[in-house]
Amino acid sequence: MLTIKRLSIDEAHHLITGARLKAEEIGVPMCIAVVDESGNLIAFERMNGGKVTSITIAQDKAFTAGAARKATHEYNKACVPGNLAFGIHTAIGGRLCVVGGGLPVTIDGEVVGGIGLSSGTPDQDMVCAQAGIDYLQQQMG
Amino acid sequence: MLTIKRLSIDEAHHLITGARLKAEEIGVPMCIAVVDESGNLIAFERMNGGKVTSITIAQDKAFTAGAARKATHEYNKACVPGNLAFGIHTAIGGRLCVVGGGLPVTIDGEVVGGIGLSSGTPDQDMVCAQAGIDYLQQQMG
Amino acid sequence: MLTIKRLSIDEAHHLITGARLKAEEIGVPMCIAVVDESGNLIAFERMNGGKVTSITIAQDKAFTAGAARKATHEYNKACVPGNLAFGIHTAIGGRLCVVGGGLPVTIDGEVVGGIGLSSGTPDQDMVCAQAGIDYLQQQMG
Amino acid sequence: MLTIKRLSIDEAHHLITGARLKAEEIGVPMCIAVVDESGNLIAFERMNGGKVTSITIAQDKAFTAGAARKATHEYNKACVPGNLAFGIHTAIGGRLCVVGGGLPVTIDGEVVGGIGLSSGTPDQDMVCAQAGIDYLQQQMG
Repeated sequence: MLTIKRLSIDEAHHLITGARLKAEEIGVPMCIAVVDESGNLIAFERMNGGKVTSITIAQDKAFTAGAARKATHEYNKACVPGNLAFGIHTAIGGRLCVVGGGLPVTIDGEVVGGIGLSSGTPDQDMVCAQAGIDYLQQQMG
Repeated sequence: MLTIKRLSIDEAHHLITGARLKAEEIGVPMCIAVVDESGNLIAFERMNGGKVTSITIAQDKAFTAGAARKATHEYNKACVPGNLAFGIHTAIGGRLCVVGGGLPVTIDGEVVGGIGLSSGTPDQDMVCAQAGIDYLQQQMG
Repeated sequence: MLTIKRLSIDEAHHLITGARLKAEEIGVPMCIAVVDESGNLIAFERMNGGKVTSITIAQDKAFTAGAARKATHEYNKACVPGNLAFGIHTAIGGRLCVVGGGLPVTIDGEVVGGIGLSSGTPDQDMVCAQAGIDYLQQQMG
Repeated sequence: MLTIKRLSIDEAHHLITGARLKAEEIGVPMCIAVVDESGNLIAFERMNGGKVTSITIAQDKAFTAGAARKATHEYNKACVPGNLAFGIHTAIGGRLCVVGGGLPVTIDGEVVGGIGLSSGTPDQDMVCAQAGIDYLQQQMG
């Protein structure tokens, strides 16, 4: 039997809160998604003004990061023509997202979920995703 | 130019809070989704123990109620073989959901969004969806 | 070689105009779609207040009627459990629509396209679809 | 509660008229789509001779421009291998379109919808999309 560690809804809310605070600080309304270690959505928030296209993209970034246990910007680096990983961006009907802004959430060395942001530039999305993780870690002491 | 009224993220959170409190009261962990008047997701929460299948179903109930401005259980009533509305349950790739648990959110006579619940029986889902709307209305005074 | 008769864009506009005038008369803002004899969209209009869910449904009704050369309410009649046609409503990913409101457009005994309406009751949708066809026939003298 | 500005059907028709006039001028029959600020279709027209593939592409260009509030050719510029935005072209099941020809429609500094053209070269599509916007602005005085 396996025992799986998984983000709780309260921890998911901490991730979203941290990401939202950073998004407000940089002045970019975002879509923010948090999934569990199986890639399934736990919580989602579209800030007032977040883009409609980002509803799906934020979720797909979180899905990719949580379920594949790899940041979407790392996939991006590998996903260049001529590289054997190229083409991964069309996998799973395009749900495997290689645009920067999705990060796995790792606690005690284990990936327990993923966070994905969308509506800013990939760099802005990545900064806010990381802020979510930092905030969660502060809350967990 | 048209002028449209739409739920804000704070109002979406009130809807979720009210639905969650009722779900806790009846002891059924739920997936809870809130969309705007165009059917686009604003906020989502899967309570600890909410069903994975309900992630999509709650969103589709909210989508149906908000975008079609009709409760999903009303579609259910009309969607019986021999009735001219039969078959509506497979529309939009099955996203048009006729299972009870999706309610339009109406403020001052205008539909401004929708709420969808899933993980309990349809009756439980409907009670919690209504509790979300009641809670929002209390908060709006 | 085959020679195919197909609605022109001007004729598609006549169909939409006739349907819209009837929709205004009965006070129900509609989504109105017209396809050609191959089921491909020629023209679409969402009246102010037409439902978002109806964008897809109106198109699927027109698609069904034009491409299958049969009114959607006729499919509806046949699509009852126990009948061998039952299940047709989930075909083509649910695009084959059996909800009333889609009519083939027949000129000189040949189906040259289809019209689909959605946002009202199936009966209202059907009345407006027929009004579109009547208007086209008047315009064609 | 948020208050949103959205294109009306009359304004959508102005956009299509302006785009069609330019398409006729350059002699390229086009598919022309207009969506609202949430990315939902308001109006569509396939000129006689417009390509069947363009039915979807025009709609996806309009969807992208309106819902993401960014021209599709700007996404195109950012969507190159090695760039962190690469891969965005497969997002949302490929509906996020990075081919030139989709423009947001901005009135008084607010994006109120989007227009998408397809059937010509991207440059031709862009010219006609812009002509639609110019025509709308003339009509609005």
